[in-house]
Amino acid sequence: MTKNNSRSKLSIFALGGLDEIGKNMYVIRYGDDIVVIDSGLMFPEDEMLGIDVVIPDITYLLENRDKVRGILLTHGHEDHIGGLPYILRELNVPVYGTKLTMGLVEHKLREAHLLNKTKRVIINNRSEVKLGSIQATFFKVNHSIPDAVGICLETPEGRVVHTGDFKFDMTPVNGQAADMHRMAEIGKKGVLCLLSDSTNAERPGFTGSERNVGEALETVFRKAKQRVIVATFASNIHRIQQVVDAADLHKRKLAVVGRSMVNVVNIGMELGYLRVPPDLLIDPDDINRLPAHKVTVMSTGSQGEPMSALTRMAHGSHRKIEILPGDTVVLAATPIPGNEKTVARTVDQLFRVGANVVYSASQHGVHVSGHGSQEDLKLMLNLIKPKYFIPIHGEHRMQRAHSQLAETVGVRPEHIFICENGDVVEFSGGKARYGAKVQTGNVLIDGLGVGDVGNIVLRDRKLLSQDGILVVVVTLSKNNGKILSGPDIISRGFVYVRESEKLLDEANRIVTQTMEKCASERVSEWASLKTSIRDALSRFLYDKTRRRPMILPIIMEV
Amino acid sequence: MTKNNSRSKLSIFALGGLDEIGKNMYVIRYGDDIVVIDSGLMFPEDEMLGIDVVIPDITYLLENRDKVRGILLTHGHEDHIGGLPYILRELNVPVYGTKLTMGLVEHKLREAHLLNKTKRVIINNRSEVKLGSIQATFFKVNHSIPDAVGICLETPEGRVVHTGDFKFDMTPVNGQAADMHRMAEIGKKGVLCLLSDSTNAERPGFTGSERNVGEALETVFRKAKQRVIVATFASNIHRIQQVVDAADLHKRKLAVVGRSMVNVVNIGMELGYLRVPPDLLIDPDDINRLPAHKVTVMSTGSQGEPMSALTRMAHGSHRKIEILPGDTVVLAATPIPGNEKTVARTVDQLFRVGANVVYSASQHGVHVSGHGSQEDLKLMLNLIKPKYFIPIHGEHRMQRAHSQLAETVGVRPEHIFICENGDVVEFSGGKARYGAKVQTGNVLIDGLGVGDVGNIVLRDRKLLSQDGILVVVVTLSKNNGKILSGPDIISRGFVYVRESEKLLDEANRIVTQTMEKCASERVSEWASLKTSIRDALSRFLYDKTRRRPMILPIIMEV
Repeated sequence: MTKNNSRSKLSIFALGGLDEIGKNMYVIRYGDDIVVIDSGLMFPEDEMLGIDVVIPDITYLLENRDKVRGILLTHGHEDHIGGLPYILRELNVPVYGTKLTMGLVEHKLREAHLLNKTKRVIINNRSEVKLGSIQATFFKVNHSIPDAVGICLETPEGRVVHTGDFKFDMTPVNGQAADMHRMAEIGKKGVLCLLSDSTNAERPGFTGSERNVGEALETVFRKAKQRVIVATFASNIHRIQQVVDAADLHKRKLAVVGRSMVNVVNIGMELGYLRVPPDLLIDPDDINRLPAHKVTVMSTGSQGEPMSALTRMAHGSHRKIEILPGDTVVLAATPIPGNEKTVARTVDQLFRVGANVVYSASQHGVHVSGHGSQEDLKLMLNLIKPKYFIPIHGEHRMQRAHSQLAETVGVRPEHIFICENGDVVEFSGGKARYGAKVQTGNVLIDGLGVGDVGNIVLRDRKLLSQDGILVVVVTLSKNNGKILSGPDIISRGFVYVRESEKLLDEANRIVTQTMEKCASERVSEWASLKTSIRDALSRFLYDKTRRRPMILPIIMEV
Repeated sequence: MTKNNSRSKLSIFALGGLDEIGKNMYVIRYGDDIVVIDSGLMFPEDEMLGIDVVIPDITYLLENRDKVRGILLTHGHEDHIGGLPYILRELNVPVYGTKLTMGLVEHKLREAHLLNKTKRVIINNRSEVKLGSIQATFFKVNHSIPDAVGICLETPEGRVVHTGDFKFDMTPVNGQAADMHRMAEIGKKGVLCLLSDSTNAERPGFTGSERNVGEALETVFRKAKQRVIVATFASNIHRIQQVVDAADLHKRKLAVVGRSMVNVVNIGMELGYLRVPPDLLIDPDDINRLPAHKVTVMSTGSQGEPMSALTRMAHGSHRKIEILPGDTVVLAATPIPGNEKTVARTVDQLFRVGANVVYSASQHGVHVSGHGSQEDLKLMLNLIKPKYFIPIHGEHRMQRAHSQLAETVGVRPEHIFICENGDVVEFSGGKARYGAKVQTGNVLIDGLGVGDVGNIVLRDRKLLSQDGILVVVVTLSKNNGKILSGPDIISRGFVYVRESEKLLDEANRIVTQTMEKCASERVSEWASLKTSIRDALSRFLYDKTRRRPMILPIIMEV
């Protein structure tokens, strides 16, 4: 009985998604039942040199693998589903998501050879999923991808609501507004704790309707004299639909370029989320057979990604399409923080090749966010009326801003928990408090390696990137310790060798002197000898150049 | 006569500042007289790994050193004066600037041991400077540093106006508005060509007055219960003045921290640009002796620079001051493009240590730009009424936007020249056309090295930063080519060695096999042997890890 009692509390925490944008993974545990919400990835920060993607550390889940009842997905964005191929390989549990979300997941799992090994369940807003003592239902929300849901979890300790990523779009493109009636119903029944999206908590007002973008696009199409090229996020099927509609209205054909865009358009059409008139789509190869005013191109690259279709088109390095003077290019997106410069460079390059460029700074309305602003967030809080509140999905200052909004609509300050990943909020007898922290962290993925790059490797990459490396090689005699060959100094990323011969000659002399000195002092241990060389050379180079290249002494013995 | 004729044209071009933000350097040449406007530096782009600063390539000036009559400075920002210590070392010419600008320049030249070698002339809005056949006068403009001027050059071919960086501030903090009367006068006399600041050409409306920031600061001071810490650009003396005034009004003492901030405050007070009541300033060491509500701190770090005073205070690593719960911290700045993430991290950290953080997203009005928006730019164009127009100081899309503004106020499209650095616009007989391009480029400064780091070094640093390096060393016998020692493989920045022993063992085997194969095929040239090792190892590692570390084979012979 005691044992059961100690277990029967409700714990809520994140393995990813708090104090960061990306790798969302939230855990709700009651007794021996664990439910996971989302399994995202994060794109590397600037200082994570050479890293491809980052996923959450799931040690906690692996240590409790027999208790994990399933993974519920809120929607199909990479920061919510991108970690699945890595995580399911280690933790084979059922995955639940709406039709479009599962369509995107299946594509990923097929590539990772995990499709047949994974139990997959498609849910909708009428589904009830039993996960041990926890029961999940789902309600529609609006977001920049269709088929996004919020999740209501009934637990013996009380009701927990997770909004997923959301906004309230009063005039949604597909006619499916966020289900405020269901939210009101849930709120009326009483909610113990709300977890809600904080991305735009710093932004005043309501977030605009996706339909506004359609109107802005219509204006662009109407004015365009030659080809129209629209770049946007591949997953924003609502926006893709509006480009399709505008092309159709203006009697233009549409070519789709960029691997992820082609993929989403195919899945969207196959599953009925994208309505494309017959004969509208053309192959990119056929563009040049049509007059310019009959052509629309839809492309990836709205973030100025160097390898994207749009960037390659702008630089004339795309295999099939080149931007021509007079083309109208629309970047239907705003830069994600950190991408401002690459986007600006792409806009500059497009102007340079003669395009008429429409971008967020030049024309209002070609993008709206998928995340609710302050008024959306207050509306959610007022509908759900939670006793406790945990702002999720955002960096610290966004969680702060969201917590202030919650206070203004009446949540008691002491009932708000601003958490980091791994902070556990425990509920018992209707009361909440912090529990013991669980292990969290970034698992770095570089090529095929999952977790084999850590701080030491990153520190070395950082060092190498700043001032390069000097390798010092010398061969000694096993018999008498005399130098048989070298010292040879090879540098990479340090200086132009041709212009710095004198410097490197002097460096060579320093190494020889150091070795002679060590020999006369009878320093025979290689480690000390290497340290002496490294120190002497480092001092010399810093003095001459104010640089600190990595120095790698290698001593061979024959 | 013919020779003279061929010379007596007017040429205008930039050695830096076009299609970029930074390293401004414009050249006006008439016959044998060359006038340079500004000598700035640029902070390195992300891909310039390890580089400290970038200055313009001044080959053109060095090749024409006997013709350079002087360098005129518009104002004291780094992107306009920061290149001087490097450039004056190679080109000893007189430098002209206003009192504050020259105060800041002197500080730089003193550090570079160039102060006594350089002829320095202080100018004001009544100065007339004769530079060979070119005569310069100056007119006040408003900018985010006091004592900024535009320049009017009278040449035998016509009048050329360079705005410098500017906006029109109708209620300037120091009471000195941009001299519209002088601009009107110049415009009335007739201007051949205008060069005008394009930084904010994408931004609608007028740029706000610096005085608005003072009002916003006043509100912050009024509400603050404990210490107030304001971070802003060190050079913005107007803003510093307003912090001084607010501190004085609210009977708080003021401590200044951050090397560049202390420097500017000293120069500003010394030269009379900053009015500080006696006893207002206190030493940072004395802060803790005063009650919290009596303290203001003014600091660098508004861009979240990792080594700045504010960042160190936020992380508890500043020697003298630590942010305490309840402190109000104002970031009176918006992030410069590229700094969004570091600023956001600083705000997050300040919240984490319990500060009440006021930043651009949380409160409107704590920053205004120093550059004119679209209406300011049109006002300038309308006052100066140039025949020809060259949009300067901005990236390509800003130059484009500025050119569109010029068209709307009546400049003929064929009279607008959107140039890159090195594009020469030649004026002769009142007509303009493109001339032969001049050499331009980025000179990269890394430590003490000026220009000894170029594309090959940067490419190596980039490679090293992505997947690290593997050094393969082997010692061969001079006599029979047999392996005497090795192959040894040492890696840095590639994988955790401990977790990848098997991989590195296999790599070792691959090298041995390759060398044996080469030996059996009688490959004796080291270059081919090295290439074979590099290829085999690269293929193996890519196959196993999908990474491409730099591979450096080193063969020693004894």
